[in-house]
Amino acid sequence: MPRFIKSISKKAGTAPGTLIHIGERKSDRAKITLIEYGADRADRRVISSLEEIETPSHPSQMIRWINVDGLHDTSLIEAIGKRFDIHPLTLEDIVNAGQRPKAEDFDTYIYAVIKMLHYQGEGAVITSEQVSLIIRDGLLISFQEQEGDIFDPIRERIEKGSGRIRHSGSDYLAYCLIDTVVDHYYQILETFGEELELLEEALIENPKPEILHRVHELKRETIYLRKQIWPLRETINNLSRNESKFISEPTRLFMRDIHDHTVQVIEIIESYRDILTGLIDLYMSGISNKMNEVMKVLTIIATIFIPVTFVAGVYGMNFKYMPELDWPWGYAGAWGVMVCIAVVMVFYFKKKNWW
Amino acid sequence: MPRFIKSISKKAGTAPGTLIHIGERKSDRAKITLIEYGADRADRRVISSLEEIETPSHPSQMIRWINVDGLHDTSLIEAIGKRFDIHPLTLEDIVNAGQRPKAEDFDTYIYAVIKMLHYQGEGAVITSEQVSLIIRDGLLISFQEQEGDIFDPIRERIEKGSGRIRHSGSDYLAYCLIDTVVDHYYQILETFGEELELLEEALIENPKPEILHRVHELKRETIYLRKQIWPLRETINNLSRNESKFISEPTRLFMRDIHDHTVQVIEIIESYRDILTGLIDLYMSGISNKMNEVMKVLTIIATIFIPVTFVAGVYGMNFKYMPELDWPWGYAGAWGVMVCIAVVMVFYFKKKNWW
Amino acid sequence: MPRFIKSISKKAGTAPGTLIHIGERKSDRAKITLIEYGADRADRRVISSLEEIETPSHPSQMIRWINVDGLHDTSLIEAIGKRFDIHPLTLEDIVNAGQRPKAEDFDTYIYAVIKMLHYQGEGAVITSEQVSLIIRDGLLISFQEQEGDIFDPIRERIEKGSGRIRHSGSDYLAYCLIDTVVDHYYQILETFGEELELLEEALIENPKPEILHRVHELKRETIYLRKQIWPLRETINNLSRNESKFISEPTRLFMRDIHDHTVQVIEIIESYRDILTGLIDLYMSGISNKMNEVMKVLTIIATIFIPVTFVAGVYGMNFKYMPELDWPWGYAGAWGVMVCIAVVMVFYFKKKNWW
Amino acid sequence: MPRFIKSISKKAGTAPGTLIHIGERKSDRAKITLIEYGADRADRRVISSLEEIETPSHPSQMIRWINVDGLHDTSLIEAIGKRFDIHPLTLEDIVNAGQRPKAEDFDTYIYAVIKMLHYQGEGAVITSEQVSLIIRDGLLISFQEQEGDIFDPIRERIEKGSGRIRHSGSDYLAYCLIDTVVDHYYQILETFGEELELLEEALIENPKPEILHRVHELKRETIYLRKQIWPLRETINNLSRNESKFISEPTRLFMRDIHDHTVQVIEIIESYRDILTGLIDLYMSGISNKMNEVMKVLTIIATIFIPVTFVAGVYGMNFKYMPELDWPWGYAGAWGVMVCIAVVMVFYFKKKNWW
Amino acid sequence: MPRFIKSISKKAGTAPGTLIHIGERKSDRAKITLIEYGADRADRRVISSLEEIETPSHPSQMIRWINVDGLHDTSLIEAIGKRFDIHPLTLEDIVNAGQRPKAEDFDTYIYAVIKMLHYQGEGAVITSEQVSLIIRDGLLISFQEQEGDIFDPIRERIEKGSGRIRHSGSDYLAYCLIDTVVDHYYQILETFGEELELLEEALIENPKPEILHRVHELKRETIYLRKQIWPLRETINNLSRNESKFISEPTRLFMRDIHDHTVQVIEIIESYRDILTGLIDLYMSGISNKMNEVMKVLTIIATIFIPVTFVAGVYGMNFKYMPELDWPWGYAGAWGVMVCIAVVMVFYFKKKNWW
Repeated sequence: MPRFIKSISKKAGTAPGTLIHIGERKSDRAKITLIEYGADRADRRVISSLEEIETPSHPSQMIRWINVDGLHDTSLIEAIGKRFDIHPLTLEDIVNAGQRPKAEDFDTYIYAVIKMLHYQGEGAVITSEQVSLIIRDGLLISFQEQEGDIFDPIRERIEKGSGRIRHSGSDYLAYCLIDTVVDHYYQILETFGEELELLEEALIENPKPEILHRVHELKRETIYLRKQIWPLRETINNLSRNESKFISEPTRLFMRDIHDHTVQVIEIIESYRDILTGLIDLYMSGISNKMNEVMKVLTIIATIFIPVTFVAGVYGMNFKYMPELDWPWGYAGAWGVMVCIAVVMVFYFKKKNWW
Repeated sequence: MPRFIKSISKKAGTAPGTLIHIGERKSDRAKITLIEYGADRADRRVISSLEEIETPSHPSQMIRWINVDGLHDTSLIEAIGKRFDIHPLTLEDIVNAGQRPKAEDFDTYIYAVIKMLHYQGEGAVITSEQVSLIIRDGLLISFQEQEGDIFDPIRERIEKGSGRIRHSGSDYLAYCLIDTVVDHYYQILETFGEELELLEEALIENPKPEILHRVHELKRETIYLRKQIWPLRETINNLSRNESKFISEPTRLFMRDIHDHTVQVIEIIESYRDILTGLIDLYMSGISNKMNEVMKVLTIIATIFIPVTFVAGVYGMNFKYMPELDWPWGYAGAWGVMVCIAVVMVFYFKKKNWW
Repeated sequence: MPRFIKSISKKAGTAPGTLIHIGERKSDRAKITLIEYGADRADRRVISSLEEIETPSHPSQMIRWINVDGLHDTSLIEAIGKRFDIHPLTLEDIVNAGQRPKAEDFDTYIYAVIKMLHYQGEGAVITSEQVSLIIRDGLLISFQEQEGDIFDPIRERIEKGSGRIRHSGSDYLAYCLIDTVVDHYYQILETFGEELELLEEALIENPKPEILHRVHELKRETIYLRKQIWPLRETINNLSRNESKFISEPTRLFMRDIHDHTVQVIEIIESYRDILTGLIDLYMSGISNKMNEVMKVLTIIATIFIPVTFVAGVYGMNFKYMPELDWPWGYAGAWGVMVCIAVVMVFYFKKKNWW
Repeated sequence: MPRFIKSISKKAGTAPGTLIHIGERKSDRAKITLIEYGADRADRRVISSLEEIETPSHPSQMIRWINVDGLHDTSLIEAIGKRFDIHPLTLEDIVNAGQRPKAEDFDTYIYAVIKMLHYQGEGAVITSEQVSLIIRDGLLISFQEQEGDIFDPIRERIEKGSGRIRHSGSDYLAYCLIDTVVDHYYQILETFGEELELLEEALIENPKPEILHRVHELKRETIYLRKQIWPLRETINNLSRNESKFISEPTRLFMRDIHDHTVQVIEIIESYRDILTGLIDLYMSGISNKMNEVMKVLTIIATIFIPVTFVAGVYGMNFKYMPELDWPWGYAGAWGVMVCIAVVMVFYFKKKNWW
Repeated sequence: MPRFIKSISKKAGTAPGTLIHIGERKSDRAKITLIEYGADRADRRVISSLEEIETPSHPSQMIRWINVDGLHDTSLIEAIGKRFDIHPLTLEDIVNAGQRPKAEDFDTYIYAVIKMLHYQGEGAVITSEQVSLIIRDGLLISFQEQEGDIFDPIRERIEKGSGRIRHSGSDYLAYCLIDTVVDHYYQILETFGEELELLEEALIENPKPEILHRVHELKRETIYLRKQIWPLRETINNLSRNESKFISEPTRLFMRDIHDHTVQVIEIIESYRDILTGLIDLYMSGISNKMNEVMKVLTIIATIFIPVTFVAGVYGMNFKYMPELDWPWGYAGAWGVMVCIAVVMVFYFKKKNWW
């Protein structure tokens, strides 16, 4: 549950625009990576201070991608904000890891927030990491909570110059980042789907409480997933439809493609939810069936033996005058009566379709 | 569950526009069939290379339908893309069998994706096959995952020249293909409905766990069906409403007709879902009723015999001074007491409406 | 379930516009009735061939209503289509009794489909019959699956000249027909509501499985009802709002009135659904209560007699050295112990509020 | 249930515009009250015929409010319709007490239908009464099913001249009537809420079937309430937004206020529904808990005494050679074994957390 | 439940615009605090009469914030209304603590209602307090039900001159107040989430009825929360979108930020509701599991001992001719039979997977 809400409450009462890092501190030091690339070259280096970033002489020919890993160093974020002229509310959103995915169009840049998700499969929970993007002409600044390797293929593509990335603008780079994050959702859904399948098989074979607990957990995970991904649909829609000058027409077409993927991801999550609800029903009816069977065995044993035990009890009485006790065939007769009762009962159950 | 998501995850990290076949490999070799027809003649042949397709001298008089069975040969798809000037994103979608149904209007063609469904009835699951259509002036290219005979009646109509097909454009041909796919949904729904009916009868007669399992399976199938067909509604709507130059006015009218059918198909699926939910309730109450009856029999037997067995137990005690044991009518009296208890119990149950 | 889908599947693969009768064959021969009326006279006759219908000399003064009972004679329908210039898709819809209610505006006429419903009350299912209307200037053609008497009051009003019907156009006649069908829905809902009331009383008195089965059936009937009536809302809305020249302004006002009724009918159906869900809950809790009571009786009897039977069992043992057996008050003491146990148990149950 | 549908079915087949009173006959004779008031005077009298209503010489200075109690006298309603030029469909709606709340804008007047609700609290059902309003310049005609005192405070305000009522038009008077009806809804919801609270307390203390029945009844009442009030929202919205000349700008502001109240009333009803669903769940789990406890007691008693009774049974056997019977400590040993079994069982239950 | 509806019913029948305090009387005397501030100075004092508020000579340079704690003194509210020219309907809404959150744009001011919520955590219920804001040029009047310290940080910021507050208008001050209230919601949701987490752990460990009761209570609290916060979304939306002259463009941007927060709060509440529903399911299945286990133990004990007790009963019969009793190995044989039965039973259970 604490996943459902990051402690924005720390902030209550402070002036709007105050930078307070909200979220787990996931890295020791903030790390800034600068990648500069154009049609003919690409350069990548880790920098230690903002001064190292030079204003390019030919901004139209080179794209700069500044990636910041770690959000806790608010003074650094503030310096970046000052250097690149970012609105205080945007800075506040960047350091607050509890944002909903959204895309906001400011005069000098587009600000987009998306959620990177992590899931280890069987028994694990889904964790989320906030990725903020500032899209400007020839410049993309990305903020991550911690260093990760999910964007490595993009870095490679930039360095190798494969695909159209070296020939496109910062908007296309932003598209590549978002596309990678959304493609990653599919991996998570696949792992998720596999666990679902194993759970279903286990449930049908033997409905045990532990399986049900996991089903309940997964259902909560789908609530979490939906909460993280649902607003993305509108976000991407904004990026692909709006009239901002920072997104070029061809990139909009690509954005529309991500939009389709996002819708599909949401539909799969909804299907998973329905399937999980079905699994709970399956469990409940499995338990019901099992109990029913247990009850039937008890009932059959009890209803056969209770009457015959009574007969045995009757002839165990110590009355002086009990004529049957002296009959030569009394004992055999008693057995006969008891067998008769048992047989009648068995037939009754057969007829009632209980056996 | 793996049906709910094709492994798009393979793709994560690759550059957008890279052709990677996603889906099961369903055929050995891709097979290309070319049908050329006009008002007065129709010609059909299997071709082995793209070079065999000549650019027609009078494009306005002849319609060409190129059908490709098999999506795994990405180099072929790429060649087709180059030859007919298709956008890389469209090619990527064609080879990725996990698309949602959609219709996209490019400048030089319309791209439509629909899902052909297969269902064998009782005990089977529904499988889907992706059909992609490229609609251009005088040209229709269709991509299927495997060879199938569902489009045979259309081929016959073209060859025999029956109906208006030989006198209409490639948009009408596209309409015929989609119409055939949607009509096929009705067959599936009919088979589905029949199985539903059998299940209901079986459930009312004797609620067995296996029936419930099948009901759960069918409910999951409706989730799958809805996921495959729901987006089609918007797809067809786009085709019948949009302003594209590739769909003529009379064909739009026909498209509107498919739109009505799609809405009806979706409504029937929703009805089936509601009915399946009703069947689960029916099962649960059937089980409840049965258990109730079992419990009642147990209770009646137990509550009659437990007290009388106690009476028998009392007179089985070995105390020296038990006056009743010496009474001449003691034994008969004990029977009397026991019969009385039983009769009182029976009357109590009758009064309580339990019998 | 077969009610939920008419076998459109027969049609799969045929050319669009092919007339294939879909639905049960409900009448032997198609019957054509022609009613011609104007402000001052009305004339009604059964005709055997289309030639008998003369083109009126003063179309603006006379309204012609052609009613066709029976849809299986596709050649007749085709002839009507040729005579009155009806689009092939419309003809296809007329003979296909599985249409959704809809209203389509063609250039030369309006085509409307509605569903007439039949319900016999207690134990019955709801059946539907398709009514198609072709509305043109001075002409209304109606198609029914079988002869019925639901439109008789309208025929009488035309013959007697009561109300405004003789002074209005074919659009007002169409309104009268639709109004009659919708008013008929109220009768069905009333009968339905009465059965609901009886079921509820029966359920509260004694929750029996048969009642539950009927409740389940009725719930399925509401699914069916909703499916038949829901699209009518949009249909009527189209007729009352659209700009067609075939519906005059005053008639639009009357159509708006039917729209209100349709909305009300749909709301009542939704209420019935909610009530039926409530009845299922009521049944389940009734069963639960009953089982609970049964269990309590069993528990009380068992927990009182099991311990005392044990005491009797103890003194039925045959050990040589059992001092109690020789005590003069042994037997009475045993009774005392047993009564004590029983009394303690009873008090325990009383305290626990179980009795 | 008959409350959910007034017998409109009586009407099926009659010509539209025919006045047929639908609903219970709640009063013996229709009673007409005329209140005439202006800034400086107010006059109220019961009139017996329509002729007594004079056309005012200065219509702009005097407001006339004609209130009709009783709808069964259709000839009177017809006369009013003729006198004040009311559309036949409106008259039909006035005498048909099964209307949905709505507001219709005719050229010469506004017609509004609202529902007055009555509820007596604990154990009662909610009944509704239809109030129709005809709003014209300087004239308001209201139709009620029976005489009531809910509008008395308004009559007093008119007579005492308190508030702005004497200085405003007929639209403000209509607002006052609707406002009174909506305020009355709050009283009903309050009484309803109080009963809910009592039921919840009773449920937590001791879940009895009667309470559940009442909860089910109340849930049906909320279905009824929602059905009566939901359309009012749109009705008031129409009155406060539309461009009719009969509602002045300041009155629109007041109407907006009622709109807020209606929305709040609907939200409260929805909350009540949710709470009632929660109560049913509470009941079911209460019953479950109780049954669980009963079962545990039964199981504990049975599993302790069944084994020890078996031991007693063993030493009650009459075999000649049973060495234990002759041992001096046999009897004490048997007791020891039995006590041991009981103690082991008790510890087992303790460990399993069942006691 | 009384929380769900404040007694507006007191009001029924009174003239609109009559001031009647609705809600609990939470403070003894109304307290008026006046804060005057500009770019260079800030002044705060408690005033006892409205006369103390002077009309500022340079209204454009100074902002006045009048805070009124306590709503029961209707004559004071009326005086404020007269002094600052507030519409009677607004005054009525201010003293009626049962308003829905809303924002209304009058010609001379904006009126906004929001709800401050209080929650003490574990075992507590959520209470709400109404805050009304009148926003005019250079003037903000706020009305609270009681004195509170939630706005203290804002007062401090004004006095210390930190942030932009001293350099902005009354609209920014209004924003700060609303922002503080919404930030406070996060604190409540956090406390709520923590309790949820504890409950879930407790449920999984040992499903006790008290936990379920709390879960039910919390579910009702989410209904209450949603009811209080849901309309806020539209309210803030109105403030950030509408064209009122009282909200400046930069402040609109800040308002949009609150809008995002409100949407997030609502989503979290919905997630909590889903989680709580999951907890109820978890409880029910926990109870089911437990009962199942109890039943199994009972069945195992009973089905083993009932047959063997019968065997003991048989040889406790007193027939004269019972050959087995005289066999030397009779007693050992009986034991053998009994052990056999028990062993067979145990194997049967093992095989059935019950042990």
